[in-house]
Amino acid sequence: MTSVATDVKTRVSRVLVVGAGFAGLNVARGLGGVAGFEVVVLDRRNYHLFQPLLYQVAMAGLSPAEIAAPIRALLSRYDNVRVVQGRVDGLHLAQHAVSGDFGRFEYDYLVLATGAEHAYFGHNAWEAYAPGLKTIEQAIEIRRRVLSAYELAERAVDADTRRPLLTFVIVGGGPTGVELAGAIGEMSRFTLAKDFRNIDPKLTRIILIEAGPRILPSFSLELASRATRDLETLGVQVWTDSQVTDIDVSGVQVGGERILANTVLWAAGVKASQLGTQLGVALDPQGRVLVRDDLSVPEHPEVFVLGDLARVHGPNGPLPGVAPVAMQQGRYLARMLRREQQPQTKAREPFHYLDKGQMATIGRRRAIVEVGRMRVTGFLAWIIWLFVHLYYLSGFRNRLLVLIQWAWSYMTFARGARLIVEKEWRLHVPEIAPAGKILPRSVSEGPRADPEQAE
Amino acid sequence: MTSVATDVKTRVSRVLVVGAGFAGLNVARGLGGVAGFEVVVLDRRNYHLFQPLLYQVAMAGLSPAEIAAPIRALLSRYDNVRVVQGRVDGLHLAQHAVSGDFGRFEYDYLVLATGAEHAYFGHNAWEAYAPGLKTIEQAIEIRRRVLSAYELAERAVDADTRRPLLTFVIVGGGPTGVELAGAIGEMSRFTLAKDFRNIDPKLTRIILIEAGPRILPSFSLELASRATRDLETLGVQVWTDSQVTDIDVSGVQVGGERILANTVLWAAGVKASQLGTQLGVALDPQGRVLVRDDLSVPEHPEVFVLGDLARVHGPNGPLPGVAPVAMQQGRYLARMLRREQQPQTKAREPFHYLDKGQMATIGRRRAIVEVGRMRVTGFLAWIIWLFVHLYYLSGFRNRLLVLIQWAWSYMTFARGARLIVEKEWRLHVPEIAPAGKILPRSVSEGPRADPEQAE
Repeated sequence: MTSVATDVKTRVSRVLVVGAGFAGLNVARGLGGVAGFEVVVLDRRNYHLFQPLLYQVAMAGLSPAEIAAPIRALLSRYDNVRVVQGRVDGLHLAQHAVSGDFGRFEYDYLVLATGAEHAYFGHNAWEAYAPGLKTIEQAIEIRRRVLSAYELAERAVDADTRRPLLTFVIVGGGPTGVELAGAIGEMSRFTLAKDFRNIDPKLTRIILIEAGPRILPSFSLELASRATRDLETLGVQVWTDSQVTDIDVSGVQVGGERILANTVLWAAGVKASQLGTQLGVALDPQGRVLVRDDLSVPEHPEVFVLGDLARVHGPNGPLPGVAPVAMQQGRYLARMLRREQQPQTKAREPFHYLDKGQMATIGRRRAIVEVGRMRVTGFLAWIIWLFVHLYYLSGFRNRLLVLIQWAWSYMTFARGARLIVEKEWRLHVPEIAPAGKILPRSVSEGPRADPEQAE
Repeated sequence: MTSVATDVKTRVSRVLVVGAGFAGLNVARGLGGVAGFEVVVLDRRNYHLFQPLLYQVAMAGLSPAEIAAPIRALLSRYDNVRVVQGRVDGLHLAQHAVSGDFGRFEYDYLVLATGAEHAYFGHNAWEAYAPGLKTIEQAIEIRRRVLSAYELAERAVDADTRRPLLTFVIVGGGPTGVELAGAIGEMSRFTLAKDFRNIDPKLTRIILIEAGPRILPSFSLELASRATRDLETLGVQVWTDSQVTDIDVSGVQVGGERILANTVLWAAGVKASQLGTQLGVALDPQGRVLVRDDLSVPEHPEVFVLGDLARVHGPNGPLPGVAPVAMQQGRYLARMLRREQQPQTKAREPFHYLDKGQMATIGRRRAIVEVGRMRVTGFLAWIIWLFVHLYYLSGFRNRLLVLIQWAWSYMTFARGARLIVEKEWRLHVPEIAPAGKILPRSVSEGPRADPEQAE
């Protein structure tokens, strides 16, 4: 018993975190600077993205860099944390290893937190006509489409050409769909109103389509009704109990009805990242991994799944795929791993989610906030929404810039990032750094790192 | 004689401005709100770009939206100015008309100010390996390459792989090349220094290659030497009298010497925009239009060429392709056109450029400024540089944001926009708004607008 404790004390645990979203980042921060841990954070991007504000990039209110921060800079103060940009394509649980374009990493603990992407319920062809909003590239593409529609409408000569250009359909009445619809409403009614000569942006048709009986099903009925009214004052029409049956180049089919629309945005379905399928364990229909109550994978107490990739039971069904859940899971896991490193290891406690409430914003000065039985609407809710988002945004500089942008937009109705950036700059990209020469070694030079030496 | 004067008074002049850079924007502003003018501003982008700060976007210091402003918003206060996003592909000088994807516009006065792009002296294949810096897309691409090189170097396992990744070659020792080299020097020596574990960014090799005997040939020898010394303190090596003879996937050939470099940036040659070739008049070797002293095209007193597209004689040879020249030309032309609209039309005065000096910045707190015989260097020059650029930047909001970014970088060495955004989001773009239905009519409904009615 004593020897085990000594062994534990001197051993360094290698923790490999895949994905630097809210979950992964909080694991790394929770283990940063803690003796006995060596952490590698792997992400295919070089930045951590504050997804709750991504719709504001899509709607030209913020610049991408204002809601993103380099992972490296966020973690540079921790000497025991290393950041590697790379894409995982193989999980080798039996060998405690992961492989990808970065080479191969071995681990003592593996944390998978690669999030989710949009799902089109088997209609993948719809993606071309109705992009979703999960990445900065998608946000820039949506911004390009929305702003270009107005430019083309200004040039159009007859009403039949103009009408579909000034029709925006948002599919999905969850918080993202509501925030997108509200932002288009506000942009058309205020920001763009005076900038055109041939068209009146205030006549833009905005339709929010929801398959279920009401929008924002996770909120109380009272707040959802209030959000519907707020959307209506911005010119958004909400269609509930409406199933989209087809999307093509000219518009949207909703059962027997047809809307001609140049711009369709998808905020309806989500599926978990592909990585979960490689674990060989049970997944739910959305592809989320059914984890145990300590967030570990069945049969693998050293492998954890966090954030949108995990299906965790809460008091009212599975926990939602939102930032607070991911952040709490990341902090929880770091705490458990630190505890496990202690000489007297205790059994892990189960993860409990502390629900601090939920909120959504509609346009530039209205929101809904629900905390337990407390409900706030209108301007006060918007102020709460604003400060909560500023508080969680990473980096003081980003907070300052976003606050200025918001204050500026609030006073002037202007939007700071009305750029149509071209999608592609055609170029041959030099093929650099042949994969074979990149990092064919493990995280550390410890005994497990080099299988040959173990002989 | 009296009847002509009356005719002139009641007539509305249609001015078509192609290109909303510094020249075009100043023409439109100078005619905005002036009775007797109807202005259309055509640009293939929806934004005006403050090119002097584009290198800071490429070097992750600023976001694109901070140096760009929607043309529409910049001109929305003028009821007689219309903005159309579109691409010109035909000049029909005899019919006083221009055609493109927007349809066809007729004009009384035509202003061409479409600027310049990079030239590779007949080596167009070099562009893939050494992008230039004229557009936001190029700036984002350069940012992606520079930041990715560090990420790949961090993953590389041997020095032979790592060295070319940490080697940056800038071709061309004019202000853009100097500013790019200085920014990479500063980024490697300060910003990135602590963020990596396997590499030391301070060992980055940066080489500025200039074919001529010295960098910054438009500046005095004293200031150019000072700039060279400033660059050296940032780790940049300046190679003068060095002709690049080849650029390929692995590096740069300079006569008998070879540098292995993953990242090569092109700041060497410029050629005027293609539109000039359609005028059927004499061009200089860089493709610039040889204009008369009132900036009009020979044989066409109603067609003007401004900015980087024009070759205008100054006291020391042709005027340089810089923002102050373009701005002064725009303001000059608006003044001449306003004067021509008066009943008593006088002959046009020739354009005179008032040289207010030139400046370039090296890294984060050094610059060189030359105004006539006055020369300023170091920190004071940098402060002058900073305020002059803030002053000319369009929009108070952009000024405030850029000032905050600069102050922040100055204090922390951090760079606000360290994002690697992917080049392309593969998507089928719906084909919208068939060209035939877009604006097959002229600027106004005046008699010349409808040829059928003239019968």
